[in-house]
Amino acid sequence: MNLKIVKYSIGKLLLVLAGLLVFPLIVSFIYKESIADKINFILPIIISIILGMLLSKLGDNKSHIYTKEAMFITASTWLIFSLIGAIPLFLTKSNYPSYIDAFFEMVSGFTTSGASVAFNVEDLPHSIIFWRSFSHFIGGMGILVFTIAILPNSNKESSLLMKSEVPGPSFGKITPRLSDTARNLYLMYIILTILTIILLMLGRMNLFDSIVHAFGTAGTGGFSSKGISIGAYNSRYIEFILGIMMAVFGVNFNIYFYAITKNLRVAIDSEELKWYVGIILISSVLVFINILSMYKDVIYSLVNSFFSVSSIITTTGYVSADFGKWPLFSKSILILLMFIGGCAGSTAGGLKVSRFVILIKGGINQIREAMNPKKITINRLDGKRVDEKTEKSVSKYLVIYILIFIIFFMIVSIDMNDFETAFAAVATTFNNVGPGLGAFGPIETFAQMSQLSKFVLTLAMLLGRLEIFPVLLLLYPSTYRYLKDK
Amino acid sequence: MNLKIVKYSIGKLLLVLAGLLVFPLIVSFIYKESIADKINFILPIIISIILGMLLSKLGDNKSHIYTKEAMFITASTWLIFSLIGAIPLFLTKSNYPSYIDAFFEMVSGFTTSGASVAFNVEDLPHSIIFWRSFSHFIGGMGILVFTIAILPNSNKESSLLMKSEVPGPSFGKITPRLSDTARNLYLMYIILTILTIILLMLGRMNLFDSIVHAFGTAGTGGFSSKGISIGAYNSRYIEFILGIMMAVFGVNFNIYFYAITKNLRVAIDSEELKWYVGIILISSVLVFINILSMYKDVIYSLVNSFFSVSSIITTTGYVSADFGKWPLFSKSILILLMFIGGCAGSTAGGLKVSRFVILIKGGINQIREAMNPKKITINRLDGKRVDEKTEKSVSKYLVIYILIFIIFFMIVSIDMNDFETAFAAVATTFNNVGPGLGAFGPIETFAQMSQLSKFVLTLAMLLGRLEIFPVLLLLYPSTYRYLKDK
Repeated sequence: MNLKIVKYSIGKLLLVLAGLLVFPLIVSFIYKESIADKINFILPIIISIILGMLLSKLGDNKSHIYTKEAMFITASTWLIFSLIGAIPLFLTKSNYPSYIDAFFEMVSGFTTSGASVAFNVEDLPHSIIFWRSFSHFIGGMGILVFTIAILPNSNKESSLLMKSEVPGPSFGKITPRLSDTARNLYLMYIILTILTIILLMLGRMNLFDSIVHAFGTAGTGGFSSKGISIGAYNSRYIEFILGIMMAVFGVNFNIYFYAITKNLRVAIDSEELKWYVGIILISSVLVFINILSMYKDVIYSLVNSFFSVSSIITTTGYVSADFGKWPLFSKSILILLMFIGGCAGSTAGGLKVSRFVILIKGGINQIREAMNPKKITINRLDGKRVDEKTEKSVSKYLVIYILIFIIFFMIVSIDMNDFETAFAAVATTFNNVGPGLGAFGPIETFAQMSQLSKFVLTLAMLLGRLEIFPVLLLLYPSTYRYLKDK
Repeated sequence: MNLKIVKYSIGKLLLVLAGLLVFPLIVSFIYKESIADKINFILPIIISIILGMLLSKLGDNKSHIYTKEAMFITASTWLIFSLIGAIPLFLTKSNYPSYIDAFFEMVSGFTTSGASVAFNVEDLPHSIIFWRSFSHFIGGMGILVFTIAILPNSNKESSLLMKSEVPGPSFGKITPRLSDTARNLYLMYIILTILTIILLMLGRMNLFDSIVHAFGTAGTGGFSSKGISIGAYNSRYIEFILGIMMAVFGVNFNIYFYAITKNLRVAIDSEELKWYVGIILISSVLVFINILSMYKDVIYSLVNSFFSVSSIITTTGYVSADFGKWPLFSKSILILLMFIGGCAGSTAGGLKVSRFVILIKGGINQIREAMNPKKITINRLDGKRVDEKTEKSVSKYLVIYILIFIIFFMIVSIDMNDFETAFAAVATTFNNVGPGLGAFGPIETFAQMSQLSKFVLTLAMLLGRLEIFPVLLLLYPSTYRYLKDK
């Protein structure tokens, strides 16, 4: 691995981080917060600038970025952003007694999980609440995608960087020039976010809360300015709007781009989209029937079943009703949706709908072949053949995913003594959802969790967001064996 | 599918069932049970004979058995054996209020699950207790394997029948003639069973109980003559002996055959065996450390951790200590072992160690390739390359397995309201283990479960034992579309 280009890239990205940290600082000025609150942000800004300048100087951009460099840059950037981004949280003290807590919260922010260890969100200064949610907004589309979007001219090699950050089995190039792609993605992303802010304000949510929740929705994150999340507003309108907008952000952004620039009909003729909408509708109906007898209120049950399904499948994790108290059947559907996740190329986490569809179709084909050995089956998606290599890598991804899940589950089961709690805690972090079940249910926080579990679940969030390999590369000892500084 | 050969084969197999049912009838005579208790067995014997003669007459053995016929014969035989075998249980009434209960118990017997709905085993007549455990003994090695073993001369086509019943991804032919293979397997099976009976009697277990528990051990079943299973004897010796013997029956029988006829050293140089022993040892140590602080008795903790690990990985399901009350970490290990199961070609259920090893190695290879795209990795087992086709079918099997697991879990979650209970109930039946956790824990029975769950879990046991495809063929509507009667 070439170290010079890695240093150079990370250095430049740190300067971007310094720029991003200016936004919460401005919020701090707007709300006339104390000097201490402002220093909380000024300090990491200075650190980012110094470190960034130093690293860019030590490296250079004369050499090439290959897959390995791309993965390494991606994983270490996410790590460093979370480490430095956690400083303001740690310095506020009140909600984050240890640096592990602050780090957990920031990883949860950038990975758009939204699992929080803050035991009293309402106590936090506006600047901190803004920063947590802003990290969702940045992390949702991707730190590197953001950087590529703002860079004046990016070379071909940025495509590898983008590939290692954008989730899903495939990665479609929309426009010939990559920085255009990134810019177009961000343009749509920002337009949809502004739309969400306006729609929320129409529901009498104040501007600050609307921005915070729009960021959480756009990035499919889930941090709220309220301890009991969206439930605090007790408004069917807000729940419905967010239910719709969360679902919108769980769709592959290429579809929107295609719909605007080319053909709406061809765009919505995506098989993944049909499955995604179908799963949301069927799940909502099943949950609705299941919880109706509990709430005895048709409208309330209808809106909350849809909201919860949309929130969980998109791995946003906003909570309107305490689904931890729902019957097991509904909870099981939600847990299953955590694993399925949103569409590839969206801001959502989980395995992604397209992987799920490829797996299901492969399984059904295998059954048909077993029943009738003469039969030859082909796995198709969008009418096109899914080649052997893709199918193989998807099923191997599932195996790796399960193995890592088991390891995490075993570790947290050492200090959680409830199966549902431990299973949901791993599922919700590894899939970047946010709320768990049992002791760490939808309206609880992760504050009471042991330091070991917090650390392990932090790793789970990073592995889940970057789809395992880049983070493993960072942890793999042999990565550091063949470093060359030229 | 050719119907004549199917009818003929099932007809002959029904006559075998009639013969098998004579054994519990003899037990009924030995223990001088009531006339009613004897009629309970005479009735199904008559039914089997009449039905068997009728079917053999309607069919003939002039045509060929292909994969489809083999799978169909296997699945329907298992179904019919359980349906008829359930008659004596249903007629005793006391423990089986409905036919669904009796059917559940018999499927649990033949599939060697050992999950029981009998709410008071001690109340049952000896003949019934014997019959339940005898079904473990028959089902363990396989109904069809047994038939092939006793048939005077079997043709080449029996190999397909055997293949569709013997679990695991591979199927090794030991001797050129298949009936010899079956006979040799049974010979070792019987010798090891007798050894178990003797060892148990040395621990002062009476003859009847020793036979019952040896049958349960040999078939890796788990039905006991005691309501609280092996815990009733409160003997470290019996627990240790059973722990060892269960582990012995979880090993691929080819290894014993090879050790006796050829070379011990080559025989134990099996990679699957090493993994199997390694998993048992590591799991036992981890559980031991975890439960020591609970029992504060080194010997007790040591024997019970080993016993429970051996019981669960071999999917036997005997219970010496109520592991439902153990810390979550230990329970999680046991749940994981349920899925791994014993070695291929043993009497154990689960995914099988060899599948597990192939999956792990494939996953690790995929990680290495992702880290270093130039690397080419090869999946090896026993030094030999695992070909693409095997690897593909193993990972597809996993996908199908997971999908079916999810469907079962969703259905039982409708009427169980605890995540651990529902998850363990499906895991324990689908993997043919026996005891669950939570409300249907190790020392509870499945008696209180709803009829829907009982039915669904009955199906799970059959699907698990026959490794999915034969049962699906039986349920698949198009199977019945192209029947031809010649």
